[in-house]
Amino acid sequence: MKKYFRDPLYNFIIINETWILDLINSKEFQRLKQVKQLGTSEVTYYGANHTRFSHSIGTMYLMDKALGQLKNVINIDEETRKIGLAAALLHDIGHGPFSHVFEKVMSTNHEQWTIDIVLGDTEVNRILKTVNSDFPQKVAEVIKKEYEHKFVSYLLSSQLDVDRMDYLLRDSYYVGVKYGLFDVDMIIKSMLVCDDNIVIDYKGLYAVEQYVLARHYMYWQVYYHKTTRGYELLLQNILKRAKYLYEQNLLDIKIDLLIPVFKNEKINVEEYIQLNDSVILYAILSWKNSRDKILRDLCCKYLYRDLYKAYEIEQSFPFSLDAIKEILKNQNMDAEYYLALDRPSNVIYDYYVEGEEGEKPPILINSMGKNKSITRFSESIKAISGSQKIKYYLYFPRYNYDGVNISDDIIKYLEELKNE
Amino acid sequence: MKKYFRDPLYNFIIINETWILDLINSKEFQRLKQVKQLGTSEVTYYGANHTRFSHSIGTMYLMDKALGQLKNVINIDEETRKIGLAAALLHDIGHGPFSHVFEKVMSTNHEQWTIDIVLGDTEVNRILKTVNSDFPQKVAEVIKKEYEHKFVSYLLSSQLDVDRMDYLLRDSYYVGVKYGLFDVDMIIKSMLVCDDNIVIDYKGLYAVEQYVLARHYMYWQVYYHKTTRGYELLLQNILKRAKYLYEQNLLDIKIDLLIPVFKNEKINVEEYIQLNDSVILYAILSWKNSRDKILRDLCCKYLYRDLYKAYEIEQSFPFSLDAIKEILKNQNMDAEYYLALDRPSNVIYDYYVEGEEGEKPPILINSMGKNKSITRFSESIKAISGSQKIKYYLYFPRYNYDGVNISDDIIKYLEELKNE
Amino acid sequence: MKKYFRDPLYNFIIINETWILDLINSKEFQRLKQVKQLGTSEVTYYGANHTRFSHSIGTMYLMDKALGQLKNVINIDEETRKIGLAAALLHDIGHGPFSHVFEKVMSTNHEQWTIDIVLGDTEVNRILKTVNSDFPQKVAEVIKKEYEHKFVSYLLSSQLDVDRMDYLLRDSYYVGVKYGLFDVDMIIKSMLVCDDNIVIDYKGLYAVEQYVLARHYMYWQVYYHKTTRGYELLLQNILKRAKYLYEQNLLDIKIDLLIPVFKNEKINVEEYIQLNDSVILYAILSWKNSRDKILRDLCCKYLYRDLYKAYEIEQSFPFSLDAIKEILKNQNMDAEYYLALDRPSNVIYDYYVEGEEGEKPPILINSMGKNKSITRFSESIKAISGSQKIKYYLYFPRYNYDGVNISDDIIKYLEELKNE
Amino acid sequence: MKKYFRDPLYNFIIINETWILDLINSKEFQRLKQVKQLGTSEVTYYGANHTRFSHSIGTMYLMDKALGQLKNVINIDEETRKIGLAAALLHDIGHGPFSHVFEKVMSTNHEQWTIDIVLGDTEVNRILKTVNSDFPQKVAEVIKKEYEHKFVSYLLSSQLDVDRMDYLLRDSYYVGVKYGLFDVDMIIKSMLVCDDNIVIDYKGLYAVEQYVLARHYMYWQVYYHKTTRGYELLLQNILKRAKYLYEQNLLDIKIDLLIPVFKNEKINVEEYIQLNDSVILYAILSWKNSRDKILRDLCCKYLYRDLYKAYEIEQSFPFSLDAIKEILKNQNMDAEYYLALDRPSNVIYDYYVEGEEGEKPPILINSMGKNKSITRFSESIKAISGSQKIKYYLYFPRYNYDGVNISDDIIKYLEELKNE
Repeated sequence: MKKYFRDPLYNFIIINETWILDLINSKEFQRLKQVKQLGTSEVTYYGANHTRFSHSIGTMYLMDKALGQLKNVINIDEETRKIGLAAALLHDIGHGPFSHVFEKVMSTNHEQWTIDIVLGDTEVNRILKTVNSDFPQKVAEVIKKEYEHKFVSYLLSSQLDVDRMDYLLRDSYYVGVKYGLFDVDMIIKSMLVCDDNIVIDYKGLYAVEQYVLARHYMYWQVYYHKTTRGYELLLQNILKRAKYLYEQNLLDIKIDLLIPVFKNEKINVEEYIQLNDSVILYAILSWKNSRDKILRDLCCKYLYRDLYKAYEIEQSFPFSLDAIKEILKNQNMDAEYYLALDRPSNVIYDYYVEGEEGEKPPILINSMGKNKSITRFSESIKAISGSQKIKYYLYFPRYNYDGVNISDDIIKYLEELKNE
Repeated sequence: MKKYFRDPLYNFIIINETWILDLINSKEFQRLKQVKQLGTSEVTYYGANHTRFSHSIGTMYLMDKALGQLKNVINIDEETRKIGLAAALLHDIGHGPFSHVFEKVMSTNHEQWTIDIVLGDTEVNRILKTVNSDFPQKVAEVIKKEYEHKFVSYLLSSQLDVDRMDYLLRDSYYVGVKYGLFDVDMIIKSMLVCDDNIVIDYKGLYAVEQYVLARHYMYWQVYYHKTTRGYELLLQNILKRAKYLYEQNLLDIKIDLLIPVFKNEKINVEEYIQLNDSVILYAILSWKNSRDKILRDLCCKYLYRDLYKAYEIEQSFPFSLDAIKEILKNQNMDAEYYLALDRPSNVIYDYYVEGEEGEKPPILINSMGKNKSITRFSESIKAISGSQKIKYYLYFPRYNYDGVNISDDIIKYLEELKNE
Repeated sequence: MKKYFRDPLYNFIIINETWILDLINSKEFQRLKQVKQLGTSEVTYYGANHTRFSHSIGTMYLMDKALGQLKNVINIDEETRKIGLAAALLHDIGHGPFSHVFEKVMSTNHEQWTIDIVLGDTEVNRILKTVNSDFPQKVAEVIKKEYEHKFVSYLLSSQLDVDRMDYLLRDSYYVGVKYGLFDVDMIIKSMLVCDDNIVIDYKGLYAVEQYVLARHYMYWQVYYHKTTRGYELLLQNILKRAKYLYEQNLLDIKIDLLIPVFKNEKINVEEYIQLNDSVILYAILSWKNSRDKILRDLCCKYLYRDLYKAYEIEQSFPFSLDAIKEILKNQNMDAEYYLALDRPSNVIYDYYVEGEEGEKPPILINSMGKNKSITRFSESIKAISGSQKIKYYLYFPRYNYDGVNISDDIIKYLEELKNE
Repeated sequence: MKKYFRDPLYNFIIINETWILDLINSKEFQRLKQVKQLGTSEVTYYGANHTRFSHSIGTMYLMDKALGQLKNVINIDEETRKIGLAAALLHDIGHGPFSHVFEKVMSTNHEQWTIDIVLGDTEVNRILKTVNSDFPQKVAEVIKKEYEHKFVSYLLSSQLDVDRMDYLLRDSYYVGVKYGLFDVDMIIKSMLVCDDNIVIDYKGLYAVEQYVLARHYMYWQVYYHKTTRGYELLLQNILKRAKYLYEQNLLDIKIDLLIPVFKNEKINVEEYIQLNDSVILYAILSWKNSRDKILRDLCCKYLYRDLYKAYEIEQSFPFSLDAIKEILKNQNMDAEYYLALDRPSNVIYDYYVEGEEGEKPPILINSMGKNKSITRFSESIKAISGSQKIKYYLYFPRYNYDGVNISDDIIKYLEELKNE
């Protein structure tokens, strides 16, 4: 039996293996239809409405193409192929709603949830077992990078993997920018395997360079957009406040499906997979009617675009957070919820120093039979590798609760400091 | 002050009028970010995640281009231009979540809500008034097709309008199909005005033909897809059941924000604009734990893709709904919620018969100075005009509550009838 | 050994069979790099510079995809597959420069030349024989529609074939219009074989409809564009005049490579494959310095865009060519070279009437197991099928040899007639 | 009067100024329809058939958009705008066929020819004068970078200009690669003018980075492709040999239109604009029948893809050209025509060192009101700036005149050296 999915990037994706279709139709995977890929980005870029569901299928599609290419080079047995496809399809299944924000406040971890869903008492686990009894275990090994055929793990998660390839292309398409484009077909057809590692033939060098830089551009133009970060901050503070109120027994509007995560106990898979974006969005809609002034105010800000003011500062700038807290305090505003220093930073390509702690394997280029790190061939990647780019944004409110502008006072303080 | 929006279809959309920016940032308009353009289509086509927010801005963008073209032909004063833009931006602002389904069950009407939001005590209304005091009234007139400059209403809503142009292109892009593509630039540059009516110069004939057929294809391949219709049916039955339970005082899990619409009273704008897709989705997530067997079952079906079986039948086929109801009754299943005959039908282009009731003005083509209906020039549009295409789908469950297949019994009944 | 071609439509086309690579590198096939696909269209649409070389490779690529799909349905042996690919690759190899114009004046026939190149003493023939000895014969049979497996011929040449699919998509891409777009992947995945005939599964109906209409639009917007037709007429008259002068021994500037075709003898393959677009273009460049006033004038018109005036007339319009000839004669202009009535006409889809002479097999749609003509399912195709659309254009010069406007006189004559 | 051109990149380009239309229809500009943008690249990438005609119109289109953006910032009077458009449209009008190759052998210079056509006794000059009498002079000044408003010259020719922007996008489109893509709209909307110089607002930084790297990729993947360079070499040797034979009075097949350039005299504009690609292609077709063995052999190689063998060597590799010449001499082959060392090199972005000779003004980025070189903001551009990348290819024949392989001997010699 064949099933065709229409993918905006790859046109038809054909699934003709029952166990894959069953995975897609499982409870846990269907949930991803209500989990946005880019979380709060859609408030900045209105096209960014796509979900982890489409990204997961796209990642599996690229894994399939990559394994097909590698079969030209090495023998890949049927079981390994299936393990690769399953791991690609399921690699994001543990993501919660608005994933990074949610994780931070609720102290959960999406990677652990992914493993729990693959190995636990779930539909996904039961379907994987129909392939064979240790199949779930092996899929989990790929995700944990403990699988014996290391190249499969590398394909899924490394400095050059099908996960990143799909999300760069997909995010670009939906956001409507050209920053994330690169020649994915050229990269895949340049893939080789050497010593259980993925290596790129020299002819794919420029395509890989494009890919590394595409990630660079997407980080700074999209993922770390200051407005998006401001929304994330708001959301984080909303959840933090609600949790605090819940713990103090002061939360007047309760959202049933969120209660389990407010309790400081380990929640189970059944409870976890009830959570999707609509739970958070419904909570925000509801809490904007809360009696708690802070919770109500933050929810209104979120819904009606009254965002924090973002102010970029230099790293060395000697401002005092205490001074700003004082201004807020005078307005009866709690700095805990109204002031934040955000430091988005990104190491775009990790330079490999043998023996160093935390080293990440480099992207390898094969030229005339020898494998060398891409930094040996590409001046531009060498230039940006290892160097961390950081920005500093200070977020604070525009108005106090009475609608009086207070951001002017804060800015005045900062500007005066600057001119000293 | 200029604001650039990134649109996946049109790249940058530049807004440099404050009142438009204010409209976009208003409470009522921001709500559209959480209202999907295609409702349940995303469960069939996973890319269809776009919202009425992007469509509304796109419609305004095309209105702006169309008015710009018409300025080559006729004088258009500044006020009329602004009225056209505002009407285009706001034309969908009254849409509820999962719009058509919601309207049917809850007896609301999105067009009336649009007028209410434009004229009522809302942020939108206050912003429109800053342009001038009768501006909201005139914008409402365009939407109601009562505006003195009829060509503006035609541009927004007729058989050839910017609303359809945007949604055909946008839906195609997100769904990932080519069915909705046509040469929008050619249509716009062929636009003329004659007697307060929009007329297309002959050079745009083929582009208009493409546009009419694009709509035809999108209806049958996307909008009326049988799986999507099945989801709509499920959603409709969920809301119907919940409302019934509420009225009987039997609804055990209450969703606060939905209560106002369950009461049989007119709700106010403030209550209405709290509703977005997440409210419905949260309700379904919650109700799958209801004690009511039917509500619980329908919600699980919705979430875990256990869809109704769709069975296409010929119009003349002499089956008996009663016979099938009997089968369901034997399984203790209520036909009210588990059986439906769906008749999607579509008149793709309305043939114009002068003097006839309900006539819709035809698309006019100007050839050598004379305006004639497009059916005079296009054999293919003539062929499909006025003729209603109907399909008949019977929806029924695959399994009874105990997981025993009952669709086989129903299909057996239908197949035997067919072979008689 | 693998060879990758970059195709603007399909990205990488991979060739991994030596005999195909050899065919592509053969003398006769390489010639197609200098034969434009759309002849004089590039003077109207400046992007239309693509060649029969790219179209031929694209046609083979689609043939390969189609045969791959059909293998899901029927058994296709290796030899038949190879025959299909070779026929697709070579189907246009006999095209001369500016093909239809050249054929008309020089009385050659590209289909016959294709057969001659496949079967004659050529590199192509020698390479085909390396596959096996009767391979050239079978490839020729496919092209002549005499091959035993009829579905292969249908795939290459019928009302729904890979030749048309490729050229519609490719011409659209280069010209820069959206008229020729359709869902080619959907058509191919809907292909079935029944009784040695190609049949399309119902799910592909709309895609096929798009395809038929795409051809319709491309004919009228691109292929039959009046400016392009005017250029063809000029080119035809240039060749006619040069041939006439040659026969009268009056041609003062001889283009060596064209001499063989001016002689009224059958030329051989060796002479024929020397001809490409540059021969004709070089001739026009040279002849603009001819002592013959007509030849010189026509060549200047061609090079410097002093085109014939095109005047559209109704079929029933009772004008007299003699009257216009008289006007030209008074200006010492030879109507033979300066006056033409062009009647582009197109039957977009041939309606099938069983038993009728010249009937073309209809496109068949399979719905619930039965095959029926597409006109049974598609109102719009039914509407345009069998009906011939004709336009009438009268072409005449704007100026006489002294630069005095004479088109005004002719138009005056025509307008007066019209107003009578 | 309006004229619409269909451009595959920008869709409709609208011309509504008569003088521009007249320039496009002039003799000298129409010639560009027969001059390919990428010369011999189409033998490597079969889609690369586009012409300098489309590139010239595209360049004018981007100039128009850029000037439109700058009008938001500074006052630009009507005359300056027209001068900018004319210079953009005409900047390539002096290009000969297969431009760089032709120039090298024939000692002409396309930039000088451009000036000659703008200022000389040409249609172009007469049309420019209709705007006003010193208009041709000023257009020439822009091209020569002597125009008083320097920013106009910079827009046309600098490290960030509309010429490069158009050709990167256009070449990518036709070749079918993604290497040349970047966000052109973002660059244009980030343009400012400061001190008569073009400056890019910080928000356009990543788009400019993409643009610089796009050029980098296109050079190495397309423009300097070793097969293309091999064809250029062949063409160069064909022209060199024909010229030599002509000078020795030994050229048996004369191509009339090429005679003027074989004579060592300055040719006039009238003679020059007769030359287009078809003259060269016709000559090659003709000369393959020459009695001169070398000329005949080179032409056959060109037509039938029997290319030189390309062998990449390291810069420091101590091979001896004399040794290889010896091998060729033993085969009676003239190293002058059969051996070449090619050194494509490219400085992708010129690092600016104040006061240094030949310095090129850097791309300036405006951040918070201050202009600084882009290398201050972009690590990757800094990394590749100023550093020259060079490759070394040795080209030699595969076979001697009798079809005996001699490249093996040469390769053997080189490999042995390498292993020493």
